[in-house]
Amino acid sequence: MSTEAPRRGRRPGSPDTRAAILTAARQSFAQQGYAATSVRGIAAAAGVDSSLVHHYFGTKQDLFVASLELRVDPRVIAPTIIVEGKEHAGERLVRLLLSVWDDEEARLPLMALVRSVFEPEGMSLAPEAFGELVLGPVGEALELDEPERRMGLVGSQLVGIIVLRYVARLEPLASAPPETLVATYAPVIQGYLTGPLP
Amino acid sequence: MSTEAPRRGRRPGSPDTRAAILTAARQSFAQQGYAATSVRGIAAAAGVDSSLVHHYFGTKQDLFVASLELRVDPRVIAPTIIVEGKEHAGERLVRLLLSVWDDEEARLPLMALVRSVFEPEGMSLAPEAFGELVLGPVGEALELDEPERRMGLVGSQLVGIIVLRYVARLEPLASAPPETLVATYAPVIQGYLTGPLP
Repeated sequence: MSTEAPRRGRRPGSPDTRAAILTAARQSFAQQGYAATSVRGIAAAAGVDSSLVHHYFGTKQDLFVASLELRVDPRVIAPTIIVEGKEHAGERLVRLLLSVWDDEEARLPLMALVRSVFEPEGMSLAPEAFGELVLGPVGEALELDEPERRMGLVGSQLVGIIVLRYVARLEPLASAPPETLVATYAPVIQGYLTGPLP
Repeated sequence: MSTEAPRRGRRPGSPDTRAAILTAARQSFAQQGYAATSVRGIAAAAGVDSSLVHHYFGTKQDLFVASLELRVDPRVIAPTIIVEGKEHAGERLVRLLLSVWDDEEARLPLMALVRSVFEPEGMSLAPEAFGELVLGPVGEALELDEPERRMGLVGSQLVGIIVLRYVARLEPLASAPPETLVATYAPVIQGYLTGPLP
């Protein structure tokens, strides 16, 4: 008889391990939401040690971003909106949205994420991803008063552009030149960011 | 041998006939779109005469509204927005949206319609329903310049409110009092309706 305990489950180094962690992460984020999900729980579900999850993916937020399989990390992009302060943040936010969504390769995984909003209760990562990775950081970095409320208003306009221009492809919005849309929407977004609130 | 031709398909008076017409209508509107769908085609698909379709449902637009199974006929509601002219149409449009969507019974079929935007290509009635039954008539009745462009902008904000407040239930937007939202969004919608365009 060998004194070595039999190996159970997936070996840490196997290529399956990474995939198993991602699958467990996606399920947990989708079913329990971002806040209630723990790295420890994901590790348990994937049959590995927590330290291995951190080793492969970093923090819980890093793992969340990885689980979304986006081409564009919103955390890299968000700072470009705020680098020159909040005076022109509205314009830059609209321009950024259009540049990402007009790029077909970047659009595909985002489209899957947006579509997931309409999946059965509790199965969508989109609201939390949008709040946690885009609205939250931008609102915080711009040092807005009432950041959650203001970024919710911003989000409601941006999401509407996404749905009508890119998903429903309603004309003439779908074919409008980006610069026209920037000129149209930037003042509205800027108003939501820094204008008076009722 | 009888001289009478055998009856084929559904009898006009049977309760199935109405359902068969509605099913054929839904399929045709969803697959071919509103414009390309004809009452004649729907009648053929349902195995009945066109006159029977008109008898049961009226015009093609009436049939379209019936096929959506809404509790609220947008064509009845749209005129209430325009009855007092376009000066306060933005405010009335936001108030109407919130009153319909805050009513759970009215919301359910609308939610199904919105969800259908994200169904596979060509299977959604939502963009055409929204354009044909709400944006189009309101824009026309308000006698806007560039009605399609302006109503597209209006639509992009209203759809975003629907998605974040009612579908994703993003806070604090989801729990905001209607009157606060009216005060916040009415000036934006009014700007899209009657303000300068770039």
